[in-house]
Amino acid sequence: MEKKRTLKIGVMGSASGPQIEDSVAIEKARQLGRAIAKRGYILINGACPGLPHESMLAAKAEGGQTIGISPAFSEYEHINEYLSPAGHDIIIFTGMGFMERDIINIRSSDAIVIVGGGIGTLNELTIAYEEGRPIGVVTNSGGISNAVPHVIEDLCQRKMLPNTVMHDDPEKLLTLLEQVIERYPLPIHEDGRVRDLHEGRG
Amino acid sequence: MEKKRTLKIGVMGSASGPQIEDSVAIEKARQLGRAIAKRGYILINGACPGLPHESMLAAKAEGGQTIGISPAFSEYEHINEYLSPAGHDIIIFTGMGFMERDIINIRSSDAIVIVGGGIGTLNELTIAYEEGRPIGVVTNSGGISNAVPHVIEDLCQRKMLPNTVMHDDPEKLLTLLEQVIERYPLPIHEDGRVRDLHEGRG
Amino acid sequence: MEKKRTLKIGVMGSASGPQIEDSVAIEKARQLGRAIAKRGYILINGACPGLPHESMLAAKAEGGQTIGISPAFSEYEHINEYLSPAGHDIIIFTGMGFMERDIINIRSSDAIVIVGGGIGTLNELTIAYEEGRPIGVVTNSGGISNAVPHVIEDLCQRKMLPNTVMHDDPEKLLTLLEQVIERYPLPIHEDGRVRDLHEGRG
Amino acid sequence: MEKKRTLKIGVMGSASGPQIEDSVAIEKARQLGRAIAKRGYILINGACPGLPHESMLAAKAEGGQTIGISPAFSEYEHINEYLSPAGHDIIIFTGMGFMERDIINIRSSDAIVIVGGGIGTLNELTIAYEEGRPIGVVTNSGGISNAVPHVIEDLCQRKMLPNTVMHDDPEKLLTLLEQVIERYPLPIHEDGRVRDLHEGRG
Repeated sequence: MEKKRTLKIGVMGSASGPQIEDSVAIEKARQLGRAIAKRGYILINGACPGLPHESMLAAKAEGGQTIGISPAFSEYEHINEYLSPAGHDIIIFTGMGFMERDIINIRSSDAIVIVGGGIGTLNELTIAYEEGRPIGVVTNSGGISNAVPHVIEDLCQRKMLPNTVMHDDPEKLLTLLEQVIERYPLPIHEDGRVRDLHEGRG
Repeated sequence: MEKKRTLKIGVMGSASGPQIEDSVAIEKARQLGRAIAKRGYILINGACPGLPHESMLAAKAEGGQTIGISPAFSEYEHINEYLSPAGHDIIIFTGMGFMERDIINIRSSDAIVIVGGGIGTLNELTIAYEEGRPIGVVTNSGGISNAVPHVIEDLCQRKMLPNTVMHDDPEKLLTLLEQVIERYPLPIHEDGRVRDLHEGRG
Repeated sequence: MEKKRTLKIGVMGSASGPQIEDSVAIEKARQLGRAIAKRGYILINGACPGLPHESMLAAKAEGGQTIGISPAFSEYEHINEYLSPAGHDIIIFTGMGFMERDIINIRSSDAIVIVGGGIGTLNELTIAYEEGRPIGVVTNSGGISNAVPHVIEDLCQRKMLPNTVMHDDPEKLLTLLEQVIERYPLPIHEDGRVRDLHEGRG
Repeated sequence: MEKKRTLKIGVMGSASGPQIEDSVAIEKARQLGRAIAKRGYILINGACPGLPHESMLAAKAEGGQTIGISPAFSEYEHINEYLSPAGHDIIIFTGMGFMERDIINIRSSDAIVIVGGGIGTLNELTIAYEEGRPIGVVTNSGGISNAVPHVIEDLCQRKMLPNTVMHDDPEKLLTLLEQVIERYPLPIHEDGRVRDLHEGRG
């Protein structure tokens, strides 16, 4: 009915902490950004510093389109109080703070990719999991990147979802991600397991 | 410090009701969309039908970039339940429903322009007013378009803000809007009158 | 199935502007608060100053339970930056600012009552209208209180909803409000006209 | 200035999964609810089934006051679609879905206590951590309850905050929690590390 829209890939990951100084993680973040741009996708991030910013810069250098979802209300607050970078093509200033921004960030993305990652990224992982969104994990990029199955299966005693994919090569990860985006349509409603089920669509 | 980013102009207005069948309002909405695109600005709307959709189509026909902020969680829900159009270059599926969508819609825009407008648009007018965002009103486009000063001054007993501009010619309105965007910087914080004042920046 | 829960009545109205110094409006706000408490209902307001605060104080003096929904994140911010009163039995610090607070405020209430009212109250009126919530208007209390049908019918060209009631006597208004709360159940979903309709429940 | 308000303790934990059938976890949840009520505190939960519901029922049986923060818009949706219990003294129907509900749930509580817990609880842990809210963990209650330091220190490479306390006895945990609530005031602003710091109050 509608022609396929350009995919938006959300890059989540460490904005602070030891992971943002890890040269392997930085290089993987850059590879990821370049790969997203090369495939003609839009790169979305939280308009934060750190690994997602490395991805964004790499995507821009490759000519890709980039969108930032900021926790701040204004560009002034974004730059001077959140001390965040503002080089994206488009920035949405949500004025909603970090936690609500994380929700919008994820919903704005057709799939998210995690590189490194601390508490904030873990927050985003739980949102994406709960809302059924495709998740790609760049393994061996530090932080929580090698612990996703451990967190979900061992600690939370839940099942890994079939639209979660992992690889330490960002290029190959994106290929896997394209497949699960295609194969597993998003839940229709916000709390999909609740409403879709009742309507016989879950 | 940063080079000026492309302006994002949010088009708000009647998505239903008698205003969307008024040929004058439709023509003004189209002129507005074309004018936004010609100036190289990004057109944002609520991804709704009606007058903002007419503006969006006209902007696209002119080669402009368009972004929709949807109340729906998924494209399926957007099209099949909200019965909303999906031709934008980018759609953000907020999953937050109409009321929260209105807030994000406005904050995503450097300025909003009102064409026609019923209750939903009045909601958006009050948000934009309270948060100090530049407002342009295409007068003589039906709905609330000729009543803005009446609502603010007579009914609410508040003052018209200096960054609200009105004109019945969308082209001239945009020129006025550019001036107030330049002259009156946005409040720094979400509830600007509260925080900015205390910090001596209001 | 469940026994009826205590009704929560949200009091909205002028928190600033000329209306908060109008002795007639103040007296009506106090009558409203007393009447809510006498009937054993919970009074909810936005934890703001002005007319809703007068209602809250009167309800407390009458032994009623009171809940405030604050835009602030902390009690410190509430008192020292928003300059807002904190005498409620319970305050929910949403940390979401005025606009999102308004939405939560309304959804927390089984019905809202408007006294006086400027731009902020008009915002709340549009939300309550759009979401189908019962609305009571204390007429002759200044601000927008006598203009509700004018705004909805003349300016917005929409229909007054059958669960909107108006009276200049707060006691009689509450009786009317009880009737429409009983007669017209709330929409089931956030955007009721959208989803309930599709599911054959609208 | 203001007299101390009644403490609100948010009980978070497994609403589904194997943890809700673990008799040790259930008993600890009940002990927690009773202890909250005995100390005269208000128990808040997400109006969900499972362990937080066991706490709520125990608090009610002890005569305590209970508030539920529901993801649903209406009582009908809460009961029939979210399949959630509705026995609280007060329920706030946020209409915002699980993820936004989690944020409001936490901000409504002066401190949160975790019992058991899967992905949803992990989401709440990350929010409470990021926003500096006091956290109590009932250890040996299954799910993530014994893994909090492992998640924060080993996986996320962040520091445990001094206002996080852990004990396997709910009574003793509450005593520890009272101490950190007293000792470590909440951040003033939503993203406290950002704003409070700049204003010299962090």
